[in-house]
Formats: sequence, structure tokens, C-alpha cells
Amino acid sequence: MALIVQKYGGTSMGSPERIRNVARRVARWKAQGHQLVVVVSAMSGETNRLIALAKDVSPRPDSRELDVIVSTGEQVTIALLAMALKDLGLEAKSYTGGQVKVLTDSTFTKARILDIDSDNVRRDLNAGTIVIVAGFQGVDQDGNITTLGRGGSDTSGVALAAALKADECQIYTDVDGVYTTDPRIVPEARKLDRITFEEMLEMASLGSKVLQIRSVEFAGKYKVKLRVLSSFEEEGQETMGTLITFEEDSKMEQPIISGIAFNRDEAKLTVLGVPDRPGVAYQILGAIADANIDVDMIIQNVGHDGTTDFSFTVPRGEFERAKKILEEKVSPHVGARAVEGDSKICKVSAVRVGMRSHPGVASKMFRVLAEEGINIKMISTSKIKISVVVDEKYLELAVRVLHKAFDLDQAAA
Amino acid sequence: MALIVQKYGGTSMGSPERIRNVARRVARWKAQGHQLVVVVSAMSGETNRLIALAKDVSPRPDSRELDVIVSTGEQVTIALLAMALKDLGLEAKSYTGGQVKVLTDSTFTKARILDIDSDNVRRDLNAGTIVIVAGFQGVDQDGNITTLGRGGSDTSGVALAAALKADECQIYTDVDGVYTTDPRIVPEARKLDRITFEEMLEMASLGSKVLQIRSVEFAGKYKVKLRVLSSFEEEGQETMGTLITFEEDSKMEQPIISGIAFNRDEAKLTVLGVPDRPGVAYQILGAIADANIDVDMIIQNVGHDGTTDFSFTVPRGEFERAKKILEEKVSPHVGARAVEGDSKICKVSAVRVGMRSHPGVASKMFRVLAEEGINIKMISTSKIKISVVVDEKYLELAVRVLHKAFDLDQAAA
Repeated sequence: MALIVQKYGGTSMGSPERIRNVARRVARWKAQGHQLVVVVSAMSGETNRLIALAKDVSPRPDSRELDVIVSTGEQVTIALLAMALKDLGLEAKSYTGGQVKVLTDSTFTKARILDIDSDNVRRDLNAGTIVIVAGFQGVDQDGNITTLGRGGSDTSGVALAAALKADECQIYTDVDGVYTTDPRIVPEARKLDRITFEEMLEMASLGSKVLQIRSVEFAGKYKVKLRVLSSFEEEGQETMGTLITFEEDSKMEQPIISGIAFNRDEAKLTVLGVPDRPGVAYQILGAIADANIDVDMIIQNVGHDGTTDFSFTVPRGEFERAKKILEEKVSPHVGARAVEGDSKICKVSAVRVGMRSHPGVASKMFRVLAEEGINIKMISTSKIKISVVVDEKYLELAVRVLHKAFDLDQAAA
Repeated sequence: MALIVQKYGGTSMGSPERIRNVARRVARWKAQGHQLVVVVSAMSGETNRLIALAKDVSPRPDSRELDVIVSTGEQVTIALLAMALKDLGLEAKSYTGGQVKVLTDSTFTKARILDIDSDNVRRDLNAGTIVIVAGFQGVDQDGNITTLGRGGSDTSGVALAAALKADECQIYTDVDGVYTTDPRIVPEARKLDRITFEEMLEMASLGSKVLQIRSVEFAGKYKVKLRVLSSFEEEGQETMGTLITFEEDSKMEQPIISGIAFNRDEAKLTVLGVPDRPGVAYQILGAIADANIDVDMIIQNVGHDGTTDFSFTVPRGEFERAKKILEEKVSPHVGARAVEGDSKICKVSAVRVGMRSHPGVASKMFRVLAEEGINIKMISTSKIKISVVVDEKYLELAVRVLHKAFDLDQAAA
């Protein structure tokens, strides 16, 4: 018997029929003798409907009051699921964030969880009751209702699993796991049975939208075993999704690369001929940070003739604004020769924990891309990934050839 | 400066535009220097929508979980009104029933208020904040969400006014006060500036649907000054509605009758020739009560030849069921001669506190009806009303002639 926290998103809870389906799935796990805590999102579309209603009354709604309204979305689904479970003859009880209680700070609309008092939940679990908890919401220390921001239900699930020391936190979604790359680009992409947290973080931050990155970080911090599964698999056809683990897989045989991630939402900026002296990087990026623009890759090569070139990438929507800042504020100030930019790029990354122990990965990656005539514009590496920036038009080709070159279309040994 | 509790119903809160109107009305009272607590219902139609959604998932929804869902209706409107008030530059804060907190028993879907902890509300009021409270809802001692049943928002308003010792509880609705009778039947009906609680109770129970009878009883018990007003009067056109008071109006000149109430939802049953001995009334009405049928008027006249006739009225929808019980279970058991029934009747009542001091009222009432050829089938009196049962077809005529005969179409002196 295990204690399992399951989280179902808005699509899984999107209609009365789907809610009854979730109830049947929960009932099957319960029938196996497990203790179950189920965290749910609002019905898909409901949060947007509530925000639109608020804006109909007040164009810029007060954030405390907005949370009071938006939190009703999950308050409805917890009760609907509890009803559906009772109709299956099971004991079930719904909890709002405040009833659990999930204590957060007072940053309305994007609060952070501080603590979870799980005594009530534990009492119900010990009595055999299935506990349904509203995701995405909590209360601050003054009892004000707060919400965690978009995707916060994943975080609620992980935080509850941590507080309850659950054996596993299962995130049900509309995909059946984490893939070696996007199957829409490479039909041969395979589902990974397991992936490490670090790889998952890279896959998520690099553009795989399976899990909220914040919930993965949270799981890593509290060592919560996380599993991504599909809520749309039929009874008897269920797979075990992808397990997200803490340690490098100990299996002897394993592919040297776990997956190929990519991100189209990148634009590249280069400040040419900046004086090669301490403080220049800060002068350039400080101005960008002050404008609240996220920076992803940063590259500065060795200089020559006392100057160097400094490149970085930003989200594509911020490209024009960042370029203007460089041209007007930074370049004259640091004495740069010119500012160049390119918004038609993308980033492609090979991800794998332990990649360092395979020194051939980088050179193989570069060779494969070169054989296809794909020019590499930037290179960045970390302990678990190698990223290259290439022309956007090569994205699909690059992902496909790398996926094949690293044998990701072959089942693991 | 007064402390005023205002309650706005679902029609008043029915759209973003109407909510902004309510905010402007509240702001006008605030501008006069008053402290304000505003109790609101869900947007009209919302409670029914939520119940229908619950029934889509579960045909007979669990009552605890139903309350979790239904209570979201008011949770949305409190926040919308608080936003609208903030947009007018006022300090405002919403409270759910649990946040106040409104402590109730655990009778889900029709809980009773046990206590109100108004410390938080009072603190906000003293700081100049307008407090918005969700009507219709509370929490039990275990923190479960409860609702008070249909119309419970009136009761929430009155209970808060009692707990805060408010100077006045204003119930805003879609009528502008209590009338001498229904203006749809008698166009000359006049709005009453004031009415006593007892009269209001009779008017409400006799068919005037202005206020929930439970909230009027509550107001009487805790001596809350209650006022019925319209939320649809334009700025500058507002009247002061009808004030509901505790004591008989002390003005010297006053009409002997306050209003003519009526109720179509009545049917009459008579058990003929029952033995005139102790316990018979209990034998008859006990069977009716056991079947959960409400009884309104009860009449038993002196017997002769050792038998008597026993009559009472029930809601029309229960007529057939009650008749069957009398015929099958009661009549043979008590040895009655026959059971008669008439479902085409109505009740018309003249209401006034202090009516007893005007002995001519009853005879005048009977004379006026007789002059129109209206036969009286039953008569029942109490300290503050005289009710007659007549053929339903005479309802409008009876109300009209009585309204005129008692000078209710004339302004009070």
C-alpha cells in the first residue's frame, strides 16, 4: 500500500463526463489498496471565464479580489469529483486550499507556498477517505485567499506530496509522458520510462511544456518522486508514463543522450568590439535586466586587439526592445563598435545527465549538423546539455537528424 | 454616523453593469459618513447553474459537496463588488462566510446560523473600509462550508446586523417597499412607510414575497431595524422604502388596517361528523403532520349531537395527498361521516397590529364581502389579522373592495 498524490489538469476535468472518468481512474488506484490524495485544476476555460468576468466589472481588477474569484474554479471541481467518487460507493471529501490548509505568502495571483498543515488530510486518509484538494490556491496567514499563478496546480500537487511524504506524485495530463523529442517533428520519438530531475528541468526550460518548471524544482528540492501520465488512456490500456527520478539511471546500458529539446522563442543579439575589460558584461546585461528582459544563453569569446564580441539570446518578443537598449544606452556607453541582431534563430539542445563522461557527444553533434549544411551560430554547454543556435529554418531538420544520430528512435537496451 | 448593513439580492447583482450600480449606491451612503457592511447574493441564475452542473455529474449530489459548489456564487459577487468599489476610490474588502466567520450548524444546504465572530469586520469598519460579505453561506465548527438555503442572504444580512449591533439593516430588492396590497391587483395600492414586525410576518406568510420570513423572525428576535428598499431607483429618485419596526406606530391618526394580504396556494379539507371528544384533532392532524404536509388555518366549531366538523387548509400541491390520507387512514379510524375538499379557494386577510381595539373590523369585512355576493367559507382570526377563505374566482374582487373599504388607497393622515 502506497500513499499517492494524483494531480488532474483542466482538460482532464473539462466536462461532467471527464470528471466521472477521473473518478473511475481514482477508484481503480484505490481498489489496489492505495491511499489517495487528488489535486485538481478548474475545468478548462473556467479560469479565463472568471478573469474575463472580473475585467467586465473592473478593467484592472484588484489582485486580492481577483484571487477570491479565480479560486472558485477549483472549488467547483473538487466538489464535483468528490460527488462522482461517492456515486461509486467510495468515501471522498473535498478541501479548498484554506481548508487543508495550504499556507502561502501574500503575493496575490502568484503566491508561494510556505507550509502545508496536512493533519486533517492525514486523518481522513487513515479513515480510508479519498481526499480531494483544490490546486492552485492557498491562504495567507491572515486568512486571505491566494492563488499560485498559472500552472500552480502542479506545484500544489508536489507540495502536498512533500508534506505528506507521499510515495509518488502523479501528474495526469493530455500527453502520456516525456518524449525524446516532440513527436510532431519526429514521429519516431519515443516515450522515456524515466528521466532525471535535472534532465527534466532542461527539457522543460528548453521548450517541452509537459510540466511547470516550478513544480519540478519543488519536487527536486523535497525529493518527491514525480510521474507524468495521461488521463486519457482507456482502462486496461494505461501505461506508467514517465518517472522523474533524482539519480542518474544506474542501468549499464543506456543511450548517451536522453532527448533533443528545442526552443523557437529565441532571438540573438551581439555587441561587437567591446573593450575587453572587467565590468563590461555587467554594463551590457545590467541594462537588459533593468528593463526586465530575460536572458537565456550568454557567450563571450576571448578577445583580440583589446576588444571582444558579446552575444546573448532573449525571448523573441523582447528582441526589438533589447536591441534599442543596446544601441541607445549600452553601445555608446561602453564604446562598442556595433550592435547586431538576428530574430530568426532557434535553439536545439541534446540533454543527458552524465553527458560529460561521453566526450564525443559535442563533436558528434557538430559533425551531424555540418553534414546537413547547418551552420552553428552559437554554442553553449552545461553539465547536462549541449545547446546550439541555428537558423530557424533548420529547426525540424536539426532535431530530426540529431534524434536519429543519437539512436533515440531505438528502444533502450 | 451610523453603522448600516445593506443586502443586495441576485437581481441587483445580475450583471457587471448592475454591480457597478450597486457600488455607486454604496458609495453614496459611504459619502454620508456611514460605516457600511454589504451582504450580497450570487448573480441571478448562478445558483441554479451551479446546481445543474452538480446534477450533471451526480444525479443526487452529496449535500456537503453541493454546498462547496453553490457557495462559489456569492464568493464571485463579493469580489466583483469589492473591485467596483475600489475603482471608485474607496477601501473595500470581501469576506466569505468562513472568513467572517459565520458559524452555522452542519445541516448542509439549509444550515442555521449559530454565531458570528465579527472582530475582523469591526476592525475593517473602524479603519474606514467597506466590508462586503457573502450572503447565504457559513462554516460549521469543523470548517466545512455550509449554505443557509434559498433566500438565506436576507438572513445573513440580519444576522450580521444583529452581531454588529448595526443601526439599520437595509434589504435592497426589486420592489421599493411593502405595499398595502399587491399593486398588480389594486393599482391604487400604496407603499407603507413603516410596518410592524408582526404585520410583516403576516404579510409575508400570507403571500407577500418581499422578504424571507426567516429573516424577519430573526430581525424580531434580535431587535434589528429592518428596511426594504429598491435597488433600481435612480440616483436622486431614491425613496426610503418601508421600515419594519417593533412597536405599534404611536401616531394618533392611522388607518385601522395596514394591508390586505392574500394567498392562492391554499386548499381546504373538512372531516364531517367526527365524534366530539378529546384527541380527535390530534388523530386527524397527526396523520397529516406525519406525511410532512404543512397545515395553515385550522377550524373546529362547537359540536352538536355529539359530533363536529373539522376543517383545515393545506398548500394546493398537497391537496390530493392529504385528502387520500383523510379518506383512507383518518376517517375510518375516528369514525367520521365523510371527507370533503375544495382546492379552488383562496385566503384573503386584513392585517393590522392593534386590530383588536377596533371591534368593527371583522363585521365591516364580512359586510363588504357580502355586498359583493362573496360567500365566506372559513374564518380565522389572530391578534393582528382576520382571514377569510373564499372561492378563488373572487380573489381579485375581494382584495379590491376590502382595500377600498378600509381607505388603504388614501394617504395616511
